[in-house]
Amino acid sequence: MDNAELRIGMVGYAFMGAAHSQAWRTVNRVFDLPVRARMVAVCGRDGAKAAAAADRLGWEGHMTDWRALVARDDIDVVDVCTPGDSHAEIATAALAAGKHVLCEKPLSNTVDEARAMTTAAAHASSAGVRSACGYNYRRVPAVALMRELIADGRLGAIRHVRAAYLQDWITDPGFPLVWRLQRERAGSGALGDIGSHIIDLTQYVTGQRITGVSALTETFVRERPRLDGPGAGPVTVDDAALFTARLDGGAVATYEATRFATGRRNALRVEVNGSLGSLAFDLERLNELEFHDATAPAREGGFRRVLVTEPDHPYMSAWWLPGCVIGYEHSFTHEVRDFMAAVAAGEDPTPSFADALQVQLVLDAVERSARLDSSWTKVES
Amino acid sequence: MDNAELRIGMVGYAFMGAAHSQAWRTVNRVFDLPVRARMVAVCGRDGAKAAAAADRLGWEGHMTDWRALVARDDIDVVDVCTPGDSHAEIATAALAAGKHVLCEKPLSNTVDEARAMTTAAAHASSAGVRSACGYNYRRVPAVALMRELIADGRLGAIRHVRAAYLQDWITDPGFPLVWRLQRERAGSGALGDIGSHIIDLTQYVTGQRITGVSALTETFVRERPRLDGPGAGPVTVDDAALFTARLDGGAVATYEATRFATGRRNALRVEVNGSLGSLAFDLERLNELEFHDATAPAREGGFRRVLVTEPDHPYMSAWWLPGCVIGYEHSFTHEVRDFMAAVAAGEDPTPSFADALQVQLVLDAVERSARLDSSWTKVES
Amino acid sequence: MDNAELRIGMVGYAFMGAAHSQAWRTVNRVFDLPVRARMVAVCGRDGAKAAAAADRLGWEGHMTDWRALVARDDIDVVDVCTPGDSHAEIATAALAAGKHVLCEKPLSNTVDEARAMTTAAAHASSAGVRSACGYNYRRVPAVALMRELIADGRLGAIRHVRAAYLQDWITDPGFPLVWRLQRERAGSGALGDIGSHIIDLTQYVTGQRITGVSALTETFVRERPRLDGPGAGPVTVDDAALFTARLDGGAVATYEATRFATGRRNALRVEVNGSLGSLAFDLERLNELEFHDATAPAREGGFRRVLVTEPDHPYMSAWWLPGCVIGYEHSFTHEVRDFMAAVAAGEDPTPSFADALQVQLVLDAVERSARLDSSWTKVES
Amino acid sequence: MDNAELRIGMVGYAFMGAAHSQAWRTVNRVFDLPVRARMVAVCGRDGAKAAAAADRLGWEGHMTDWRALVARDDIDVVDVCTPGDSHAEIATAALAAGKHVLCEKPLSNTVDEARAMTTAAAHASSAGVRSACGYNYRRVPAVALMRELIADGRLGAIRHVRAAYLQDWITDPGFPLVWRLQRERAGSGALGDIGSHIIDLTQYVTGQRITGVSALTETFVRERPRLDGPGAGPVTVDDAALFTARLDGGAVATYEATRFATGRRNALRVEVNGSLGSLAFDLERLNELEFHDATAPAREGGFRRVLVTEPDHPYMSAWWLPGCVIGYEHSFTHEVRDFMAAVAAGEDPTPSFADALQVQLVLDAVERSARLDSSWTKVES
Repeated sequence: MDNAELRIGMVGYAFMGAAHSQAWRTVNRVFDLPVRARMVAVCGRDGAKAAAAADRLGWEGHMTDWRALVARDDIDVVDVCTPGDSHAEIATAALAAGKHVLCEKPLSNTVDEARAMTTAAAHASSAGVRSACGYNYRRVPAVALMRELIADGRLGAIRHVRAAYLQDWITDPGFPLVWRLQRERAGSGALGDIGSHIIDLTQYVTGQRITGVSALTETFVRERPRLDGPGAGPVTVDDAALFTARLDGGAVATYEATRFATGRRNALRVEVNGSLGSLAFDLERLNELEFHDATAPAREGGFRRVLVTEPDHPYMSAWWLPGCVIGYEHSFTHEVRDFMAAVAAGEDPTPSFADALQVQLVLDAVERSARLDSSWTKVES
Repeated sequence: MDNAELRIGMVGYAFMGAAHSQAWRTVNRVFDLPVRARMVAVCGRDGAKAAAAADRLGWEGHMTDWRALVARDDIDVVDVCTPGDSHAEIATAALAAGKHVLCEKPLSNTVDEARAMTTAAAHASSAGVRSACGYNYRRVPAVALMRELIADGRLGAIRHVRAAYLQDWITDPGFPLVWRLQRERAGSGALGDIGSHIIDLTQYVTGQRITGVSALTETFVRERPRLDGPGAGPVTVDDAALFTARLDGGAVATYEATRFATGRRNALRVEVNGSLGSLAFDLERLNELEFHDATAPAREGGFRRVLVTEPDHPYMSAWWLPGCVIGYEHSFTHEVRDFMAAVAAGEDPTPSFADALQVQLVLDAVERSARLDSSWTKVES
Repeated sequence: MDNAELRIGMVGYAFMGAAHSQAWRTVNRVFDLPVRARMVAVCGRDGAKAAAAADRLGWEGHMTDWRALVARDDIDVVDVCTPGDSHAEIATAALAAGKHVLCEKPLSNTVDEARAMTTAAAHASSAGVRSACGYNYRRVPAVALMRELIADGRLGAIRHVRAAYLQDWITDPGFPLVWRLQRERAGSGALGDIGSHIIDLTQYVTGQRITGVSALTETFVRERPRLDGPGAGPVTVDDAALFTARLDGGAVATYEATRFATGRRNALRVEVNGSLGSLAFDLERLNELEFHDATAPAREGGFRRVLVTEPDHPYMSAWWLPGCVIGYEHSFTHEVRDFMAAVAAGEDPTPSFADALQVQLVLDAVERSARLDSSWTKVES
Repeated sequence: MDNAELRIGMVGYAFMGAAHSQAWRTVNRVFDLPVRARMVAVCGRDGAKAAAAADRLGWEGHMTDWRALVARDDIDVVDVCTPGDSHAEIATAALAAGKHVLCEKPLSNTVDEARAMTTAAAHASSAGVRSACGYNYRRVPAVALMRELIADGRLGAIRHVRAAYLQDWITDPGFPLVWRLQRERAGSGALGDIGSHIIDLTQYVTGQRITGVSALTETFVRERPRLDGPGAGPVTVDDAALFTARLDGGAVATYEATRFATGRRNALRVEVNGSLGSLAFDLERLNELEFHDATAPAREGGFRRVLVTEPDHPYMSAWWLPGCVIGYEHSFTHEVRDFMAAVAAGEDPTPSFADALQVQLVLDAVERSARLDSSWTKVES
């Protein structure tokens, strides 16, 4: 490996692959890093489509066999952007081949796979091979600022976490039975797809972990038109998942993930209340953070809208000027920036596979609780 | 009873009594009604304080014995504004004496009392004696508009209810052990005090009832300084109550009531998502209703901020001009307006004691679920 | 005059009279004052309507001749709620008769009248007879808080004032030719009606006075259906007035008053930028004040939404609890509270007729500038 | 010229050069276009810095002499990102050399230069050589949507334009005397730098042109520390410019551009009121457009927050998913997209130099009015 170059191979080139490509292309144009990302090859099953994607997204080459990609000597990093059912196999093989791995979230569709991946990652780490899971919203500057303010003690003792990830893209019963609505491909529905984000994000910003949950899930539309033929087929994942939780620092929490919140296109909302203050965030206004500092006089107190575009805000000195907002895609640029920096420094990036496994264990507890009439269910360790 | 006059006697003159007094004083100045409220007497245990309250709040007389007030011939309505532990006794006696009763919420501190009150109210109703419970937020114009829009089918099938009542007045551990923090006086904590409001409000606007819950409660500060002596005493009610629920029309819901949401002074927030649209409300901006109509083209769609001050909005033609906002106290004026109108028409006002009992049964299910490790608990009928 | 009683006579009982009545009725129920308002008589030209208004609004009696009202021995205060063309005559007569006068804004329709009224008020003051003009928005708690924060130096040197009063009630060309659209009755259009409010309010909160203006006015709909007969008549006042200004403390300013801002029902918006911070207010959210403190670290800085419902906010300790909002009408209750307190203390209330004359002089400068092709026009003194 | 390739040379590599580079790098990765941008060379006076910029920003080569760049055969487009005092010379030379030109705004520092550039552009156009000026905010999707809705007649007759561009980066008197504060380099201050944006944007969205203005300008801090030596030097440009205006379609308008609006980092705000509706935009929330449709029933009307991330919103089908927001830099990507599409189609892109000249003429009228005591000043043609 050329010290100055980190040679990337990406598996999958759909929506998430496009977002990652934008990040790999941009990161060194904006951030000062000791290594440069080189976009060596993208891999997909359909050769023509993979070639078109390589051309469109800026990859030097393309491949159709991820095993061949993993085996290449001229690749240092494997970026796994496929659906969750293939994460374990690809990531484990890549680690075994000595490649650093950035794997999209959720880590896998099952706890067992996630455990195996975590074991593989720990083993690889001892040989200097790095891995991380792509919970990109950690890298939104406002979210990173939440974590900093809480870590600085500005909220005091955390009492409440209130998290919802609201979408509405399948409210129409005529929306077809895509892979995300099939358990064997997606693992779960709103829960794993977007619920996992708010689990990770809230644990990240508070520094606390969920210890137990009480959950219910619902599938509002139980059959949908098949994509690959006539007629309808069963939806086998949740449309919505709701749960209460306790965190190990004493906070209580509500969580909700749904694809049926009409009019909420991508509203990831988190509020944290502590003894000294509160923070609130909404992904639809990702450049803003609401901060209430209860130590200030009540006469002039209130939630302030921090426009997170200042040079001393996380990641922002590299971008434009104060008041110039950034977007969704920048979270990925920051993600690969942090990944590259860790690899260059010989350190394990975060969130680790172990961190991502813990999210998986929360998802598992949610599903078990929902099956057991919402009874309180401990998160396994 | 003089047909043109409704002679009111009020028991209790603290915060809620002051709010009710403002309503009784104002209602006929603003609304056209076939009867006039006459503020005959206010009653409280301390004679000097009751006299001062009468003078201050505009009551013709004052008394110290509520039984004597209930017995007066020149009183038609008893307005019960005492803490919850005395509601049952006063309201039942008043009904027995043939007085119409407006009773503050929650109806009582126990289900047994609430059942007895409901039986008494039904019996009284058959004799033309009316009763209602004071869930005043139903009378906020934006809330009434929510109900109208949902009843008109504008939201289609209701999928989600998301309700939180967030306050922060006891986050300071030095805040004393007031009656609201003692189970024997208050019945419960945040749950009964403000959780009851969001239960009633969401059932009212959706026209659906909660059938089961999974709950947890928490008391963050377990001891507080005594008001009546040195040292600290135990807090015997919940500081926060969180629960998920199912409604009988198929919706799933999250509820949260807390006194520890730092910076949220009185944030009653409700969002309802349906197959055709969504509505959102925040009591801190009580003149506004957010409405998303999903049947409009997405290109120009979005949550619109309806400023609920138009003549064709509920209650508003009686007030000022479009754009002239109203406040918290107006919900009580509307409440007594509706109460008086029903009494004058010989009809039962709403919410009835039976409606309020049902809220009580939900509160009871929440407490039982919380005691049973959040297991799913059906609401009794 | 009974020391404990302030006997009020009100002239005019339309919209503004109803608002004032609510204030007189409520003020002693909420505020501790050394005097009590007694609502002795309301006066209007039509006897039957005046009687109905008295009954509805809570006045002991009614009259049809304001001169008779002014002459009554049992009246201490004359509250002038008529259109602007009669202010001068009524207020001057009342002062001459030794009555304290609260006169609605704008003070009069012409500068000459306003000068005469101011002379009369000064003369009366030396005899202990008080007078004030009803710029009620000064008494909105958030506005009063703006003034306090600026007076405390929290904004440093004021650089910018940005004021707009946006309404939309005559955007329909079919809206009829009411008195407010006729110069002889109303004096001017949006300018005097609502422009006067933002002139007074911005001068009040900044403590600075406008020294010169450059203005344009526009009448978009030049003819409207007559109310009193067939056909259309000419609109003789402005629909909109826009001007830039300089204040005597060095600030520059933009002002806009319009009745054609579609969708803005009653949006009085003011922003003030100073060297140390900024404040912003919108009457449609009158319980909120946006405050930016630039002396705080930029990393956590931003406009904070102060919910102006705390006990240490102006006027608010008398009302409900933190988070319980108030409305439009409360500004009048606060206005009469301040008026009564000043009268009781033997002091001149504010804004004085002299203050209101100065607003009139600004309005006059605006109209002169608009006639002279927007050329810079000094405000006379 | 290779039909499939548009070879770009950029002059200037500071802030604006970085933003343009991001756009040139990204445009073909996101948009389908018949030509590809190839980033051939960046040019700057300092060779080492230019080399570093080329390396950082992704340009194949670098140069120190813009005349040499203009003369290169292997360059098709010259992108002018220098301060305004050199625009005329570079752009004119490039056009003369047959290069298409994209020139940053404002077009030039003087009307005379702008006129000459416009003549050169018209001459070049007849030979198939294209030019445009970089008013990038036209390409913000919400702004483009404003234009579409107005062009569709959704606002009816335009009555009001209310535009402000508020920044605060020089409120500190210790901020040094940078080139933007010197007339000979920058032409003017807030007026030309950001006032030009709101002039162009409002004319663009309304399709109307400003015909006359009445203006005032102010320099709050008249001396600032020199960058290139000890002591202070004079600020020779405006800190703030305020003006009223009339548009040729009958609307009246207020404009304000300032660098002293403390707490407003980059708040470009535009509101347009028409007879049928209104639109409002704030650059700090650039993914949102507020739309009020007055033809809808008032009972459910209100400004709706359109999240401009739908596939049928301008430019957005190329990006991510609904609810995934974009940022400041995307306006430049859209700008070069439109420029490239026009060049490929053999059409003149917009805004043309003639459009930009007209903005210049408005700026000129503003400055003349400000010098002449705000007297009404027609915009020359």
